[in-house]
Amino acid sequence: MSRNLLLISTSTTHGTGYLEHAEEEVKALLDGKSSVLFIPYARPGGISHNDYTAKVKEALEPWGFKVTGIHEHESPVKAVQEAEAIFIGGGNTFQLLKNLYASKIIEPIQERVKKGMPYMGTSAGTNVAGKSIGTTNDMPIVHVKSFDALQLVPFNINPHYLDPIEGSTHMGETRETRIAEFHHLNRQPVVGLREGSMLRIKGDRIELKGPHSARIFLQSEKPMEFKAGDDIGFLLEAY
Amino acid sequence: MSRNLLLISTSTTHGTGYLEHAEEEVKALLDGKSSVLFIPYARPGGISHNDYTAKVKEALEPWGFKVTGIHEHESPVKAVQEAEAIFIGGGNTFQLLKNLYASKIIEPIQERVKKGMPYMGTSAGTNVAGKSIGTTNDMPIVHVKSFDALQLVPFNINPHYLDPIEGSTHMGETRETRIAEFHHLNRQPVVGLREGSMLRIKGDRIELKGPHSARIFLQSEKPMEFKAGDDIGFLLEAY
Repeated sequence: MSRNLLLISTSTTHGTGYLEHAEEEVKALLDGKSSVLFIPYARPGGISHNDYTAKVKEALEPWGFKVTGIHEHESPVKAVQEAEAIFIGGGNTFQLLKNLYASKIIEPIQERVKKGMPYMGTSAGTNVAGKSIGTTNDMPIVHVKSFDALQLVPFNINPHYLDPIEGSTHMGETRETRIAEFHHLNRQPVVGLREGSMLRIKGDRIELKGPHSARIFLQSEKPMEFKAGDDIGFLLEAY
Repeated sequence: MSRNLLLISTSTTHGTGYLEHAEEEVKALLDGKSSVLFIPYARPGGISHNDYTAKVKEALEPWGFKVTGIHEHESPVKAVQEAEAIFIGGGNTFQLLKNLYASKIIEPIQERVKKGMPYMGTSAGTNVAGKSIGTTNDMPIVHVKSFDALQLVPFNINPHYLDPIEGSTHMGETRETRIAEFHHLNRQPVVGLREGSMLRIKGDRIELKGPHSARIFLQSEKPMEFKAGDDIGFLLEAY
Protein backbone atom coordinates (compact mmCIF):
# COMPACT_ATOMS: atom_id res chain seq x y z
CA MET A 1 0.00 0.00 0.00
CA SER A 2 1.41 3.42 -0.86
CA ARG A 3 0.08 5.27 2.18
CA ASN A 4 1.36 8.80 2.75
CA LEU A 5 -0.04 10.05 6.02
CA LEU A 6 0.69 12.58 8.73
CA LEU A 7 -1.39 12.06 11.86
CA ILE A 8 -0.93 14.91 14.31
CA SER A 9 -2.14 14.82 17.92
CA THR A 10 -3.11 18.51 18.11
CA SER A 11 -3.17 21.36 15.59
CA THR A 12 -1.76 23.80 18.09
CA THR A 13 0.61 23.21 20.97
CA HIS A 14 0.79 25.55 23.93
CA GLY A 15 2.47 28.79 22.88
CA THR A 16 2.74 28.08 19.14
CA GLY A 17 0.52 29.10 16.24
CA TYR A 18 -1.85 26.88 14.25
CA LEU A 19 0.11 23.92 12.75
CA GLU A 20 3.38 25.72 13.53
CA HIS A 21 4.91 22.87 15.55
CA ALA A 22 4.35 20.52 12.61
CA GLU A 23 5.56 22.85 9.84
CA GLU A 24 8.48 20.74 8.74
CA GLU A 25 6.45 17.53 8.60
CA VAL A 26 3.50 19.17 6.85
CA LYS A 27 5.82 20.53 4.17
CA ALA A 28 7.45 17.11 3.77
CA LEU A 29 4.05 15.42 3.42
CA LEU A 30 2.82 17.92 0.83
CA ASP A 31 6.10 18.08 -1.07
CA GLY A 32 5.40 18.56 -4.78
CA LYS A 33 1.71 19.38 -4.28
CA SER A 34 0.22 22.82 -4.78
CA SER A 35 -3.23 22.45 -3.25
CA VAL A 36 -5.00 20.91 -0.26
CA LEU A 37 -8.65 19.99 0.18
CA PHE A 38 -9.67 20.91 3.72
CA ILE A 39 -12.53 19.09 5.46
CA PRO A 40 -13.97 21.35 8.20
CA TYR A 41 -16.74 18.94 9.29
CA ALA A 42 -15.58 18.56 12.92
CA ARG A 43 -16.50 22.21 13.61
CA PRO A 44 -14.51 22.90 16.81
CA GLY A 45 -16.59 25.12 19.08
CA GLY A 46 -19.34 25.06 16.44
CA ILE A 47 -17.25 27.28 14.09
CA SER A 48 -18.66 27.69 10.55
CA HIS A 49 -17.10 25.82 7.63
CA ASN A 50 -16.01 29.15 6.12
CA ASP A 51 -14.36 30.45 9.27
CA TYR A 52 -12.61 27.14 9.92
CA THR A 53 -11.33 26.97 6.34
CA ALA A 54 -10.12 30.59 6.54
CA LYS A 55 -8.01 29.65 9.55
CA VAL A 56 -6.39 26.80 7.63
CA LYS A 57 -5.77 29.01 4.59
CA GLU A 58 -4.01 31.48 6.82
CA ALA A 59 -1.64 28.75 8.00
CA LEU A 60 -1.02 26.81 4.79
CA GLU A 61 -1.06 29.47 2.08
CA PRO A 62 2.10 31.23 3.32
CA TRP A 63 3.80 27.81 2.98
CA GLY A 64 2.77 27.74 -0.68
CA PHE A 65 -0.35 25.54 -0.63
CA LYS A 66 -3.71 26.66 -2.01
CA VAL A 67 -6.54 25.58 0.30
CA THR A 68 -10.21 25.00 -0.55
CA GLY A 69 -12.90 23.88 1.86
CA ILE A 70 -14.84 20.80 0.76
CA HIS A 71 -18.09 22.75 1.31
CA GLU A 72 -17.02 25.17 -1.46
CA HIS A 73 -17.18 22.32 -3.97
CA GLU A 74 -20.41 21.25 -5.61
CA SER A 75 -19.75 17.53 -5.08
CA PRO A 76 -17.83 16.38 -1.99
CA VAL A 77 -17.10 13.03 -3.67
CA LYS A 78 -15.70 14.69 -6.77
CA ALA A 79 -13.68 17.09 -4.62
CA VAL A 80 -12.05 14.10 -2.90
CA GLN A 81 -11.46 12.29 -6.19
CA GLU A 82 -9.70 15.31 -7.64
CA ALA A 83 -7.82 16.49 -4.55
CA GLU A 84 -4.03 16.62 -4.54
CA ALA A 85 -4.03 16.16 -0.78
CA ILE A 86 -6.58 16.09 2.05
CA PHE A 87 -6.47 17.66 5.49
CA ILE A 88 -9.11 16.89 8.11
CA GLY A 89 -9.03 19.29 11.06
CA GLY A 90 -9.98 18.73 14.70
CA GLY A 91 -13.19 19.39 16.57
CA ASN A 92 -15.89 16.94 17.58
CA THR A 93 -15.14 13.42 16.35
CA PHE A 94 -18.79 12.26 16.33
CA GLN A 95 -19.92 15.24 14.29
CA LEU A 96 -16.96 14.75 11.94
CA LEU A 97 -17.63 11.06 11.35
CA LYS A 98 -21.36 11.64 10.91
CA ASN A 99 -20.62 14.23 8.20
CA LEU A 100 -18.07 11.96 6.51
CA TYR A 101 -20.78 9.29 6.24
CA ALA A 102 -23.46 11.79 5.19
CA SER A 103 -21.34 13.19 2.38
CA LYS A 104 -20.39 9.66 1.25
CA ILE A 105 -16.67 10.35 1.12
CA ILE A 106 -15.40 7.53 3.34
CA GLU A 107 -14.70 5.15 0.47
CA PRO A 108 -13.43 7.84 -1.90
CA ILE A 109 -10.90 8.95 0.73
CA GLN A 110 -9.84 5.34 1.36
CA GLU A 111 -9.33 4.76 -2.35
CA ARG A 112 -7.28 7.91 -2.85
CA VAL A 113 -5.14 7.19 0.22
CA LYS A 114 -4.45 3.64 -1.00
CA LYS A 115 -3.11 5.14 -4.18
CA GLY A 116 -0.77 7.49 -2.35
CA MET A 117 -2.64 10.76 -1.97
CA PRO A 118 -1.25 12.61 1.06
CA TYR A 119 -3.59 12.67 4.04
CA MET A 120 -3.12 14.86 7.06
CA GLY A 121 -5.18 14.95 10.23
CA THR A 122 -5.10 16.82 13.52
CA SER A 123 -6.91 15.67 16.66
CA ALA A 124 -10.38 14.45 15.49
CA GLY A 125 -8.93 14.29 11.96
CA THR A 126 -6.25 11.96 13.31
CA ASN A 127 -8.78 9.97 15.30
CA VAL A 128 -10.90 9.19 12.23
CA ALA A 129 -7.83 7.94 10.36
CA GLY A 130 -7.81 4.98 12.73
CA LYS A 131 -9.87 1.82 12.77
CA SER A 132 -12.69 3.26 14.87
CA ILE A 133 -13.50 6.36 16.86
CA GLY A 134 -13.78 4.20 19.98
CA THR A 135 -10.90 6.01 21.67
CA THR A 136 -11.96 9.60 21.14
CA ASN A 137 -12.05 11.98 24.10
CA ASP A 138 -15.01 13.87 22.68
CA MET A 139 -18.60 13.94 23.84
CA PRO A 140 -21.13 12.06 21.72
CA ILE A 141 -23.02 15.23 20.78
CA VAL A 142 -24.61 13.58 17.72
CA HIS A 143 -25.41 9.97 17.00
CA VAL A 144 -23.39 8.19 14.30
CA LYS A 145 -24.61 5.03 12.63
CA SER A 146 -21.25 3.32 13.07
CA PHE A 147 -18.06 4.01 14.99
CA ASP A 148 -16.00 2.53 12.14
CA ALA A 149 -13.67 5.24 10.89
CA LEU A 150 -11.58 5.75 7.75
CA GLN A 151 -9.31 2.81 8.69
CA LEU A 152 -6.33 4.27 6.90
CA VAL A 153 -4.29 2.45 9.56
CA PRO A 154 -5.23 -0.77 11.37
CA PHE A 155 -5.03 0.68 14.89
CA ASN A 156 -6.79 3.31 17.00
CA ILE A 157 -5.42 6.62 18.14
CA ASN A 158 -6.05 8.60 21.29
CA PRO A 159 -5.03 12.18 20.48
CA HIS A 160 -4.19 14.73 23.22
CA TYR A 161 -3.08 11.74 25.27
CA LEU A 162 -2.78 12.69 28.95
CA ASP A 163 -0.82 10.90 31.63
CA PRO A 164 -2.52 10.31 34.97
CA ILE A 165 -1.94 13.36 37.19
CA GLU A 166 0.06 12.32 40.22
CA GLY A 167 -1.72 13.01 43.49
CA SER A 168 -4.98 13.86 41.75
CA THR A 169 -8.09 13.58 43.92
CA HIS A 170 -10.39 13.32 40.90
CA MET A 171 -12.23 10.01 40.78
CA GLY A 172 -13.22 10.07 37.09
CA GLU A 173 -11.38 7.47 35.01
CA THR A 174 -7.86 8.25 33.79
CA ARG A 175 -7.19 8.04 30.07
CA GLU A 176 -5.29 4.80 30.67
CA THR A 177 -8.25 3.25 32.50
CA ARG A 178 -10.57 4.25 29.68
CA ILE A 179 -8.30 2.64 27.10
CA ALA A 180 -8.12 -0.53 29.22
CA GLU A 181 -11.94 -0.59 29.18
CA PHE A 182 -11.82 -0.19 25.40
CA HIS A 183 -9.59 -3.25 25.24
CA HIS A 184 -12.11 -5.37 27.13
CA LEU A 185 -14.27 -5.14 24.02
CA ASN A 186 -11.90 -4.29 21.15
CA ARG A 187 -8.76 -5.89 19.85
CA GLN A 188 -6.83 -3.27 17.89
CA PRO A 189 -3.80 -1.47 19.36
CA VAL A 190 -4.27 2.08 20.63
CA VAL A 191 -1.62 4.77 20.28
CA GLY A 192 -1.75 7.44 22.97
CA LEU A 193 -0.36 10.42 21.08
CA ARG A 194 0.72 13.27 23.37
CA GLU A 195 0.31 16.88 22.26
CA GLY A 196 3.26 17.82 20.03
CA SER A 197 3.58 14.25 18.73
CA MET A 198 2.67 12.92 15.32
CA LEU A 199 2.85 9.72 13.30
CA ARG A 200 4.36 9.81 9.84
CA ILE A 201 3.34 6.85 7.71
CA LYS A 202 4.90 6.17 4.31
CA GLY A 203 3.89 2.91 2.68
CA ASP A 204 4.64 0.25 5.25
CA ARG A 205 6.87 2.43 7.38
CA ILE A 206 5.70 4.32 10.42
CA GLU A 207 7.64 6.84 12.45
CA LEU A 208 6.90 8.73 15.64
CA LYS A 209 7.83 12.42 15.38
CA GLY A 210 7.89 15.25 17.88
CA PRO A 211 9.36 15.76 21.35
CA HIS A 212 7.47 13.09 23.33
CA SER A 213 7.33 9.34 23.54
CA ALA A 214 4.03 7.66 22.65
CA ARG A 215 2.16 5.26 24.92
CA ILE A 216 1.04 2.15 23.10
CA PHE A 217 -1.67 -0.11 24.44
CA LEU A 218 -2.11 -3.69 23.25
CA GLN A 219 -4.98 -5.85 24.39
CA SER A 220 -4.10 -7.80 27.55
CA GLU A 221 -0.62 -6.32 27.77
CA LYS A 222 0.99 -3.68 29.94
CA PRO A 223 1.15 -0.26 28.24
CA MET A 224 4.48 0.44 26.57
CA GLU A 225 6.41 3.64 25.86
CA PHE A 226 8.05 4.14 22.50
CA LYS A 227 10.20 7.09 21.56
CA ALA A 228 11.10 8.63 18.21
CA GLY A 229 13.32 6.19 16.35
CA ASP A 230 11.95 3.06 18.05
CA ASP A 231 10.55 0.32 15.83
CA ILE A 232 6.77 0.55 15.96
CA GLY A 233 6.22 -1.22 12.64
CA PHE A 234 4.06 -3.87 14.37
CA LEU A 235 1.28 -1.27 14.43
CA LEU A 236 0.82 -1.64 10.69
CA GLU A 237 0.25 -5.36 10.85
CA ALA A 238 -3.38 -6.29 10.47
CA TYR A 239 -5.47 -6.87 13.60
CA MET B 1 -45.21 12.50 38.30
CA SER B 2 -44.16 10.80 41.50
CA ARG B 3 -40.45 10.58 40.74
CA ASN B 4 -38.15 9.56 43.57
CA LEU B 5 -34.55 9.80 42.35
CA LEU B 6 -31.06 10.22 43.70
CA LEU B 7 -28.52 11.07 41.01
CA ILE B 8 -24.99 10.99 42.38
CA SER B 9 -21.96 12.34 40.50
CA THR B 10 -19.52 9.70 41.72
CA SER B 11 -19.85 6.57 43.84
CA THR B 12 -16.69 7.33 45.73
CA THR B 13 -15.13 10.65 46.60
CA HIS B 14 -11.43 10.98 47.34
CA GLY B 15 -10.67 9.46 50.73
CA THR B 16 -14.09 7.96 51.43
CA GLY B 17 -15.47 4.44 50.92
CA TYR B 18 -17.94 3.30 48.28
CA LEU B 19 -21.18 5.37 48.57
CA GLU B 20 -20.04 6.62 51.98
CA HIS B 21 -20.36 10.33 51.16
CA ALA B 22 -23.98 9.78 50.10
CA GLU B 23 -25.02 7.54 53.01
CA GLU B 24 -27.62 9.90 54.45
CA GLU B 25 -29.26 10.55 51.07
CA VAL B 26 -29.21 6.89 50.05
CA LYS B 27 -30.93 5.94 53.30
CA ALA B 28 -33.51 8.70 52.79
CA LEU B 29 -34.21 7.54 49.22
CA LEU B 30 -34.62 3.91 50.25
CA ASP B 31 -36.58 4.66 53.41
CA GLY B 32 -39.14 1.92 54.01
CA LYS B 33 -37.66 -0.46 51.40
CA SER B 34 -35.82 -3.63 52.24
CA SER B 35 -34.22 -4.57 48.92
CA VAL B 36 -32.45 -3.02 45.94
CA LEU B 37 -32.04 -4.35 42.42
CA PHE B 38 -28.50 -3.52 41.26
CA ILE B 39 -27.70 -3.16 37.56
CA PRO B 40 -23.97 -3.81 37.01
CA TYR B 41 -24.04 -3.37 33.20
CA ALA B 42 -21.57 -0.45 33.06
CA ARG B 43 -18.74 -2.77 34.19
CA PRO B 44 -16.11 -0.25 35.38
CA GLY B 45 -12.66 -1.55 34.43
CA GLY B 46 -14.36 -4.56 32.84
CA ILE B 47 -15.29 -5.99 36.27
CA SER B 48 -17.65 -9.00 36.23
CA HIS B 49 -21.31 -8.59 37.13
CA ASN B 50 -20.78 -10.79 40.19
CA ASP B 51 -17.78 -8.86 41.48
CA TYR B 52 -19.48 -5.52 40.92
CA THR B 53 -22.64 -6.65 42.68
CA ALA B 54 -20.58 -7.99 45.60
CA LYS B 55 -19.07 -4.53 46.06
CA VAL B 56 -22.52 -2.97 46.21
CA LYS B 57 -23.76 -5.61 48.65
CA GLU B 58 -20.84 -4.83 50.90
CA ALA B 59 -21.87 -1.16 50.98
CA LEU B 60 -25.67 -1.44 51.18
CA GLU B 61 -26.28 -4.54 53.27
CA PRO B 62 -24.81 -3.06 56.48
CA TRP B 63 -27.33 -0.25 56.00
CA GLY B 64 -30.13 -2.79 56.01
CA PHE B 65 -30.84 -3.30 52.30
CA LYS B 66 -30.73 -6.66 50.57
CA VAL B 67 -29.03 -6.40 47.16
CA THR B 68 -29.44 -8.65 44.13
CA GLY B 69 -27.74 -8.20 40.77
CA ILE B 70 -30.08 -8.10 37.79
CA HIS B 71 -27.98 -10.85 36.16
CA GLU B 72 -28.95 -13.20 39.02
CA HIS B 73 -32.59 -13.00 37.91
CA GLU B 74 -33.98 -15.14 35.12
CA SER B 75 -35.83 -12.27 33.45
CA PRO B 76 -34.35 -8.73 33.62
CA VAL B 77 -37.75 -7.26 32.73
CA LYS B 78 -39.50 -9.14 35.50
CA ALA B 79 -36.73 -8.20 37.94
CA VAL B 80 -37.35 -4.52 37.17
CA GLN B 81 -41.11 -4.93 37.41
CA GLU B 82 -40.80 -6.51 40.84
CA ALA B 83 -37.98 -4.41 42.28
CA GLU B 84 -38.52 -2.29 45.36
CA ALA B 85 -35.78 0.08 44.21
CA ILE B 86 -33.15 0.21 41.46
CA PHE B 87 -29.52 1.24 41.59
CA ILE B 88 -27.44 1.62 38.42
CA GLY B 89 -23.71 1.90 39.11
CA GLY B 90 -20.97 3.70 37.19
CA GLY B 91 -18.57 2.47 34.53
CA ASN B 92 -18.75 2.91 30.78
CA THR B 93 -21.89 4.76 29.73
CA PHE B 94 -21.97 3.31 26.20
CA GLN B 95 -21.70 -0.24 27.43
CA LEU B 96 -24.33 0.45 30.08
CA LEU B 97 -26.84 1.94 27.63
CA LYS B 98 -26.23 -0.82 25.09
CA ASN B 99 -27.02 -3.41 27.76
CA LEU B 100 -30.11 -1.53 28.93
CA TYR B 101 -31.41 -1.66 25.36
CA ALA B 102 -30.36 -5.29 24.87
CA SER B 103 -32.15 -6.45 28.01
CA LYS B 104 -35.26 -4.43 27.07
CA ILE B 105 -35.57 -2.77 30.45
CA ILE B 106 -35.65 0.89 29.37
CA GLU B 107 -39.44 1.14 29.29
CA PRO B 108 -39.99 -1.05 32.37
CA ILE B 109 -37.65 1.22 34.36
CA GLN B 110 -39.42 4.34 33.06
CA GLU B 111 -42.80 2.93 34.04
CA ARG B 112 -41.69 1.96 37.53
CA VAL B 113 -40.02 5.33 38.11
CA LYS B 114 -43.17 7.19 37.00
CA LYS B 115 -45.06 5.30 39.65
CA GLY B 116 -42.61 6.29 42.38
CA MET B 117 -40.12 3.43 42.61
CA PRO B 118 -36.85 4.83 44.03
CA TYR B 119 -34.02 5.08 41.46
CA MET B 120 -30.43 5.73 42.33
CA GLY B 121 -27.52 6.26 39.98
CA THR B 122 -23.84 7.00 40.30
CA SER B 123 -21.70 8.36 37.47
CA ALA B 124 -22.77 6.44 34.31
CA GLY B 125 -25.92 5.43 36.21
CA THR B 126 -26.64 9.11 36.74
CA ASN B 127 -25.79 9.93 33.14
CA VAL B 128 -28.34 7.45 31.75
CA ALA B 129 -31.06 8.94 33.95
CA GLY B 130 -30.90 12.06 31.75
CA LYS B 131 -32.37 12.78 28.34
CA SER B 132 -29.39 11.43 26.39
CA ILE B 133 -25.85 10.21 27.01
CA GLY B 134 -24.56 13.08 24.84
CA THR B 135 -22.64 14.60 27.74
CA THR B 136 -20.81 11.54 29.00
CA ASN B 137 -17.05 11.71 29.54
CA ASP B 138 -16.62 8.07 28.56
CA MET B 139 -15.04 6.58 25.48
CA PRO B 140 -17.41 5.06 22.93
CA ILE B 141 -16.01 1.56 23.41
CA VAL B 142 -19.14 -0.06 21.95
CA HIS B 143 -21.69 1.22 19.47
CA VAL B 144 -25.20 1.96 20.73
CA LYS B 145 -28.17 2.19 18.40
CA SER B 146 -29.36 5.42 20.02
CA PHE B 147 -27.95 7.93 22.51
CA ASP B 148 -31.43 8.43 24.01
CA ALA B 149 -31.24 7.46 27.65
CA LEU B 150 -33.79 6.63 30.35
CA GLN B 151 -35.12 10.21 30.32
CA LEU B 152 -36.19 10.08 33.94
CA VAL B 153 -35.46 13.83 33.93
CA PRO B 154 -35.73 16.21 30.94
CA PHE B 155 -32.12 17.41 31.07
CA ASN B 156 -28.62 15.98 30.63
CA ILE B 157 -26.02 15.44 33.28
CA ASN B 158 -22.26 15.63 33.13
CA PRO B 159 -20.99 13.65 36.11
CA HIS B 160 -17.48 14.14 37.52
CA TYR B 161 -17.74 17.73 36.27
CA LEU B 162 -14.31 19.35 36.15
CA ASP B 163 -13.53 23.06 36.08
CA PRO B 164 -10.93 24.26 33.60
CA ILE B 165 -7.50 24.03 35.20
CA GLU B 166 -6.01 27.50 35.51
CA GLY B 167 -2.69 27.85 33.70
CA SER B 168 -3.07 24.49 31.97
CA THR B 169 -0.99 24.07 28.82
CA HIS B 170 -3.16 21.19 27.58
CA MET B 171 -4.89 22.05 24.29
CA GLY B 172 -7.63 19.40 24.42
CA GLU B 173 -11.09 20.86 24.98
CA THR B 174 -12.19 21.74 28.51
CA ARG B 175 -15.39 20.19 29.81
CA GLU B 176 -17.10 23.56 29.39
CA THR B 177 -16.06 23.79 25.72
CA ARG B 178 -17.36 20.28 25.10
CA ILE B 179 -20.72 21.10 26.64
CA ALA B 180 -20.90 24.29 24.51
CA GLU B 181 -20.34 22.09 21.44
CA PHE B 182 -23.14 19.82 22.67
CA HIS B 183 -25.42 22.86 22.79
CA HIS B 184 -24.72 23.71 19.16
CA LEU B 185 -26.72 20.61 18.31
CA ASN B 186 -28.90 19.88 21.33
CA ARG B 187 -31.38 21.95 23.27
CA GLN B 188 -31.74 20.39 26.73
CA PRO B 189 -30.02 21.90 29.79
CA VAL B 190 -26.86 20.22 31.08
CA VAL B 191 -26.01 19.96 34.76
CA GLY B 192 -22.30 19.79 35.50
CA LEU B 193 -22.29 17.76 38.71
CA ARG B 194 -19.01 17.97 40.60
CA GLU B 195 -17.72 14.96 42.55
CA GLY B 196 -19.42 14.90 45.96
CA SER B 197 -22.60 16.45 44.54
CA MET B 198 -25.95 14.81 43.88
CA LEU B 199 -29.44 15.71 42.74
CA ARG B 200 -32.40 14.63 44.85
CA ILE B 201 -35.65 14.62 42.89
CA LYS B 202 -39.01 14.03 44.56
CA GLY B 203 -42.06 14.50 42.37
CA ASP B 204 -41.65 17.95 40.85
CA ARG B 205 -39.05 19.13 43.34
CA ILE B 206 -35.33 19.00 42.72
CA GLU B 207 -32.58 19.75 45.18
CA LEU B 208 -28.82 19.96 44.87
CA LYS B 209 -27.04 18.17 47.72
CA GLY B 210 -23.42 17.91 48.72
CA PRO B 211 -20.61 20.37 49.37
CA HIS B 212 -20.25 21.97 45.90
CA SER B 213 -22.23 24.25 43.66
CA ALA B 214 -23.37 22.83 40.31
CA ARG B 215 -22.65 24.43 36.94
CA ILE B 216 -25.73 24.60 34.77
CA PHE B 217 -25.53 25.14 31.02
CA LEU B 218 -28.49 26.36 28.97
CA GLN B 219 -28.35 26.59 25.20
CA SER B 220 -27.13 30.04 24.07
CA GLU B 221 -26.65 31.30 27.62
CA LYS B 222 -23.67 31.85 29.85
CA PRO B 223 -23.06 28.96 32.28
CA MET B 224 -24.52 29.56 35.73
CA GLU B 225 -23.53 28.39 39.21
CA PHE B 226 -26.21 27.18 41.59
CA LYS B 227 -25.59 26.13 45.17
CA ALA B 228 -27.52 23.90 47.55
CA GLY B 229 -30.80 25.59 48.42
CA ASP B 230 -31.03 27.61 45.19
CA ASP B 231 -34.17 27.21 43.10
CA ILE B 232 -33.31 24.94 40.15
CA GLY B 233 -36.89 23.83 39.53
CA PHE B 234 -36.69 25.12 35.93
CA LEU B 235 -34.66 21.99 35.14
CA LEU B 236 -37.77 19.87 35.46
CA GLU B 237 -39.75 21.86 32.90
CA ALA B 238 -39.97 20.07 29.58
CA TYR B 239 -37.46 20.97 26.89
